Amino acid sequence: MTTQEALKIYRDHIARMKALNHAMGILSYDGATTAPVESAEGRGKTLAYLSNCAYEIETAPALMEAAQFLKDHSQELNPQDRREIELFLRENEYTASIPQEEFVAYVELLNKADAVWHKAKQDSDFASFAPIVKDIFETNVRFAKYYKPGQAPYDTQLSRYERGLTMEKTDAFFNALKERIVPLLKKVMAKPQVDDSFIWGKLYPTEAQRKFSDYLMDVITINKDRCSIGETEHPFTTFFNKKDVRITTHYHEETPIYSMYSVIHEGGHALYELHSADELEGTLLSGGVSMSIHESQSRFMENYIGRSREFIGLIFPKMQELFPEQLAGVTPEQMYLAVNKAEPSLIRTEADELTYALHVLVRYEIEKSLFDGSISVEELPAVWNAKYKEYLGIEVPDDKRGVLQDSHWSGGNVGYFPSYALGSAYGAQMLAKMRQSVDVEGAIRSGDLRPITGWLEEHIWKFGCLYDPMELLERALGEPFNPRYFTDYLEEKFTAIYGL
Amino acid sequence: MTTQEALKIYRDHIARMKALNHAMGILSYDGATTAPVESAEGRGKTLAYLSNCAYEIETAPALMEAAQFLKDHSQELNPQDRREIELFLRENEYTASIPQEEFVAYVELLNKADAVWHKAKQDSDFASFAPIVKDIFETNVRFAKYYKPGQAPYDTQLSRYERGLTMEKTDAFFNALKERIVPLLKKVMAKPQVDDSFIWGKLYPTEAQRKFSDYLMDVITINKDRCSIGETEHPFTTFFNKKDVRITTHYHEETPIYSMYSVIHEGGHALYELHSADELEGTLLSGGVSMSIHESQSRFMENYIGRSREFIGLIFPKMQELFPEQLAGVTPEQMYLAVNKAEPSLIRTEADELTYALHVLVRYEIEKSLFDGSISVEELPAVWNAKYKEYLGIEVPDDKRGVLQDSHWSGGNVGYFPSYALGSAYGAQMLAKMRQSVDVEGAIRSGDLRPITGWLEEHIWKFGCLYDPMELLERALGEPFNPRYFTDYLEEKFTAIYGL
Repeated sequence: MTTQEALKIYRDHIARMKALNHAMGILSYDGATTAPVESAEGRGKTLAYLSNCAYEIETAPALMEAAQFLKDHSQELNPQDRREIELFLRENEYTASIPQEEFVAYVELLNKADAVWHKAKQDSDFASFAPIVKDIFETNVRFAKYYKPGQAPYDTQLSRYERGLTMEKTDAFFNALKERIVPLLKKVMAKPQVDDSFIWGKLYPTEAQRKFSDYLMDVITINKDRCSIGETEHPFTTFFNKKDVRITTHYHEETPIYSMYSVIHEGGHALYELHSADELEGTLLSGGVSMSIHESQSRFMENYIGRSREFIGLIFPKMQELFPEQLAGVTPEQMYLAVNKAEPSLIRTEADELTYALHVLVRYEIEKSLFDGSISVEELPAVWNAKYKEYLGIEVPDDKRGVLQDSHWSGGNVGYFPSYALGSAYGAQMLAKMRQSVDVEGAIRSGDLRPITGWLEEHIWKFGCLYDPMELLERALGEPFNPRYFTDYLEEKFTAIYGL
Repeated sequence: MTTQEALKIYRDHIARMKALNHAMGILSYDGATTAPVESAEGRGKTLAYLSNCAYEIETAPALMEAAQFLKDHSQELNPQDRREIELFLRENEYTASIPQEEFVAYVELLNKADAVWHKAKQDSDFASFAPIVKDIFETNVRFAKYYKPGQAPYDTQLSRYERGLTMEKTDAFFNALKERIVPLLKKVMAKPQVDDSFIWGKLYPTEAQRKFSDYLMDVITINKDRCSIGETEHPFTTFFNKKDVRITTHYHEETPIYSMYSVIHEGGHALYELHSADELEGTLLSGGVSMSIHESQSRFMENYIGRSREFIGLIFPKMQELFPEQLAGVTPEQMYLAVNKAEPSLIRTEADELTYALHVLVRYEIEKSLFDGSISVEELPAVWNAKYKEYLGIEVPDDKRGVLQDSHWSGGNVGYFPSYALGSAYGAQMLAKMRQSVDVEGAIRSGDLRPITGWLEEHIWKFGCLYDPMELLERALGEPFNPRYFTDYLEEKFTAIYGL
């Protein structure tokens, strides 16, 4: 075998895997957006078949042989190919460590889990969801042990989403946040609350909100010929290639704010996927490198851009045009304060910038305890509610607004939550770095966000998976990650807003 | 090999084919509904890969061997399995009769044809489409001769879409229609036209039309947990299994009528697919048996139910609730007359119940003449325009609104058109038969259409592909097909509406 022959075999297998992943992704997207309820069973069968095909390709002896050959001859490869083979073998090691029938069974479990979770949430009935979530966690523990038998399973799990992340590092990170955010929140709560009554309670029709979404996608520079928007229970982003990205939102007619920040958040994910370098397209290196880096981009758009005074100033005329009666007499400054109201609340996705990390902390601690067996699935609601009381000071009235609120566990995304808080903290440090060369506020005021998106494309987006997340981050930041940028940002912002 | 072993091999292949077809169907549906514009290239690659996989499964020696074994041991099979194997081998025989390189060339020709047709239609430039359409017709003649060397090629072609259909039968059918419809239309045109001005020109917002669609789906008894509605350029129905059917519509804000009848028409197709017997699910016997029977169901709902006085009476209060200003002062009787206005027109898909069959007749006569060589492709526009003048009494101003209007020929669907007119005529005879045991008008008036849909399920839907179309029809009707029911229906209806 020559290197060229091995590369051809490798590329051919990757193209087939990508085609199958594309088909599976579209089936899932369709299932979440427009498919009728009872379609789940048929979709489950088709997904099981396709994922079986993908598994067979991914673990085909010819592919493994070619990849191993390329690794052994890596000095003959260009740096991009070398990196791709390295990532492929790394990911393959995980898949190959799982027995095929267990892998397929897990895909089927997840397909079933979504409908069970939906119904359980609707009925606020944790008991009906408990067996499924137990199965999902047990499977993840088992898979983690197959993959890294000598390592704490939750460390393995964290590292799958963010290479190199451990419980030790995550504990240190959250401790740094807790130390600053919990007292800051107490000070905020002692002050008079800002008024956000005008963004609630009136009717904000879906049709006008849809127009608002289109406008927001334009403002944040999304190319709509390559990215469409759908409607789902829980907003998300999915992507098939750099010319086919989908974001979703959920329109609540009692406020335009929920969908507004969903669109900007998911739009941040979409921008990252839409701007991988062209030469990475069709390879495993195209698209976002990790969940935390992905969240750093989505939360960058949502919070550092979308919740800035300048951004509200920029979009407020359009809001008043679309909702003239609902926003009559409201000023941009009132809107700025309203969208930055900080207050302990029940729902993570609706949480403000200040309390958000505490919601994530609850989930992180619970996952850790489920993995090491110190709590059982049956105890989940009680533990959840106790932690909300401890960190956020509030009572959880029912599981619908408590432990059943997120889709992550039913989607198999266990170990994923810390990414959200890490992403926010990465983003704050990027903002500080960006300010050294970009007039961020000036760009937002002008309505042309390209100096900002240009910086992100140049330092993050275009690299796809060429570097591991920590290396990418340090290259972009010029120094190691430091959560102090995030806590400083929060303290400065909320001190000003609440006059602390 | 035992019969059980052969059945297992056969079923396993069919399940894989169905999974791939499901995935391809969803990719196409997504492409037509919500995918961003530039996604086409990536989708094309994935579809090409999946269709290649499907071809390999369909022509796998193991499958052919098992199917042939089952045919040779058909006395050991139950009637349903026997029928399925027969249908599988019948379809396979056609494909196998064509030399592979000619088959591949034809697929490539059709791939090219779609874009050429789109552009030719846009530019109203028949000359640029002529070489392609010539090639497509010649190929179809050649393929028909490979398949059935001793038979007139157009008979073979007709029989592929509607087994047992011949030119002799189709001629007799259209002659019977022509004889009655052409003079009837002349009499209608001599009378004052009904007023339908109020359903045009005002603004009927999409949002209210979406609610109207939901309502209409309920009225015609569609289970929305198994059938969702999307929005596309041209309305269509697609189906993946009996719990996953999709219809689409197109909202034109200048009238609610276009989408209304799209929803009811596509809803008729959907109902047929949704009600195959459970025991056929997962086999090749599930779903509609032929295009004509399918059209009989869609046009039954659209015309015999949806354009009846009772149906308009039933839904009119909802229409006025959704469009109070637009329909102020309009009576149900005025609406009934408006949706039944008959008038010669240029575009088949927009034609009324009375003139529709004449549009189909033009296409049938042209296809027949192209097959037997009595006209050439170059003469097509002139022949088309002459026939529109003769049968519909109108001048065709350009080929865009003439011979280039339909996508069927560029899609290779030659011999397909008669299905549309046959379907209407089958439906009229079903209506007459249904009346013997069902109070059709009473059911519609009551708002509970289940006596009607129950009859259709019992006599048509539940059988899937268990019987060939003609046998299914005769079993349902209790007598052979007779177009007189259709012409009687038209004469009675339009005599009353126009006071002839």
